[in-house]
Amino acid sequence: MTVKIFVTGGTFDKEYNELNGELYFKDTHLYEMLELGRNKVDVDIKPLSMTDSLDMTDAYKQNIIENCKKAKEDKILITHGTSRMVQTAQVLGKSIKNKTIVLTGAMIPYKFGSSDGLFNLGSALAFAQCLPHGVYIAMNGRYFAWDNVKKNEETGKFEEIK
Amino acid sequence: MTVKIFVTGGTFDKEYNELNGELYFKDTHLYEMLELGRNKVDVDIKPLSMTDSLDMTDAYKQNIIENCKKAKEDKILITHGTSRMVQTAQVLGKSIKNKTIVLTGAMIPYKFGSSDGLFNLGSALAFAQCLPHGVYIAMNGRYFAWDNVKKNEETGKFEEIK
Amino acid sequence: MTVKIFVTGGTFDKEYNELNGELYFKDTHLYEMLELGRNKVDVDIKPLSMTDSLDMTDAYKQNIIENCKKAKEDKILITHGTSRMVQTAQVLGKSIKNKTIVLTGAMIPYKFGSSDGLFNLGSALAFAQCLPHGVYIAMNGRYFAWDNVKKNEETGKFEEIK
Amino acid sequence: MTVKIFVTGGTFDKEYNELNGELYFKDTHLYEMLELGRNKVDVDIKPLSMTDSLDMTDAYKQNIIENCKKAKEDKILITHGTSRMVQTAQVLGKSIKNKTIVLTGAMIPYKFGSSDGLFNLGSALAFAQCLPHGVYIAMNGRYFAWDNVKKNEETGKFEEIK
Repeated sequence: MTVKIFVTGGTFDKEYNELNGELYFKDTHLYEMLELGRNKVDVDIKPLSMTDSLDMTDAYKQNIIENCKKAKEDKILITHGTSRMVQTAQVLGKSIKNKTIVLTGAMIPYKFGSSDGLFNLGSALAFAQCLPHGVYIAMNGRYFAWDNVKKNEETGKFEEIK
Repeated sequence: MTVKIFVTGGTFDKEYNELNGELYFKDTHLYEMLELGRNKVDVDIKPLSMTDSLDMTDAYKQNIIENCKKAKEDKILITHGTSRMVQTAQVLGKSIKNKTIVLTGAMIPYKFGSSDGLFNLGSALAFAQCLPHGVYIAMNGRYFAWDNVKKNEETGKFEEIK
Repeated sequence: MTVKIFVTGGTFDKEYNELNGELYFKDTHLYEMLELGRNKVDVDIKPLSMTDSLDMTDAYKQNIIENCKKAKEDKILITHGTSRMVQTAQVLGKSIKNKTIVLTGAMIPYKFGSSDGLFNLGSALAFAQCLPHGVYIAMNGRYFAWDNVKKNEETGKFEEIK
Repeated sequence: MTVKIFVTGGTFDKEYNELNGELYFKDTHLYEMLELGRNKVDVDIKPLSMTDSLDMTDAYKQNIIENCKKAKEDKILITHGTSRMVQTAQVLGKSIKNKTIVLTGAMIPYKFGSSDGLFNLGSALAFAQCLPHGVYIAMNGRYFAWDNVKKNEETGKFEEIK
């Protein structure tokens, strides 16, 4: 069993540019994080982009859908910015029914030392292995069905709509 | 839904005593780790002991079994030293059938900065929520049934027996 | 012997706002950093402001000067953003001759895990204790006289002018 | 100006062996620490040994003395275990008068995330640059002459004898 992982950027992979004091993307830290976690799940990582989710266009979401459809694996994990994670989950949920797709992200960049990213990655990988087909968001240790989740912008936490 | 968490010590919770250079146990870091992971799963944490798993006696395992049986929750996570994790899983697996019990641990103490503990905790909590009743070990991003797992002492990784 | 420490903000004390993804100032981390360094130098810390050095006005620099003049200690350490550190050092150097004043800062925020801040703080505190009266910048393990230092914006390193 | 650095082991460089749970020495982290500190002091690092200071023999101390005498630089920094740092400083102080020699160490291994090592390294490097000839211990942000220092075993802090 292999879990396909698509990397799309998000806070997960942000870094601090010490010359201008701005946050930016360089490379994904997913390989490093999986090694730190001593991961032995067979994964196949494909970086799709390195984007702030606020900058994600429709073409961008379409690219994620195409890649999920084309993937031969039926277990897929997507790292994604949290600001538009729900929107991407909805688009995926409406069009893909025969795979288990789990989106996850982070509130704090992995490189900033005390990140929630490693915890989320561990839980997302576990959910991808044992949830039935469907599209889910894995955040805060929980999983949410794509059509019953919102991000509470006050608290930064994900929760059910109803 | 509540996940009961029993803390039994193990590498997870080891600290460095700067006065004598030895490793020791003080308090569990589980609260801090769950906060770092922005956890929102309802958990009920009960520290049973702070022990190196090499020092675990039969009475010690018996205490874990009793606590698992008495717990009103049917989803249980146990943090445990990795050296004797398989043995404790076997004892639990033989005597408890009506709950989902997941044991997890760490190869590197959480306090030592780059620990696998946060990744394991995330995955174990996820497995506890979605695996059917049974006793499992969650390590290296994977889950293993209690009767088909061993720790490879050469690599420090967990693997199936057959 | 007491070292007076004035905190003025700078990268040292920046934090990541996980709700909007921006960097901001909350409290100084100087107390925490000195504790981490097991510091036993007698220090008297006075936060003057929490400012990005790019936002420092003349009134702002004037406030630093006044505070340095008023301080009864003749050993002073100032944490400061690196972008305008040289300018502040020059203003101080021209007007204060009877004290040892050392400015230091960081390229990476302390909260981001792998910061140069702790190294710089250790060296600045040492320089403040043993350099003769004068105004200095302590960065990159070195010290520079206020009238012979510039920040190389390409490399982020400090160097002599001549 | 070059600072010669002799590495002799000590807590600074201890690592955690995840297979047997013991602390051990592998390679020195000094290069990595100086890079993290964005150090630009010209240094010449020579690893002499990787030893727990409790295991240091007379031959061992003699080797440090010989190396200090032979060094063409008159500014020397020595990383050393804290348990026997005072003894080594005394032996050096009695036999070398024409160089500035600064011993430093750490209470917590650098690899364990929240170490005092980086702070101590910054201060020791600064003291090596500006103290007059003599042998010193740089710990807790302070410097101590070799003949007026002891380690307080209760607190782990260094202090004057009188």
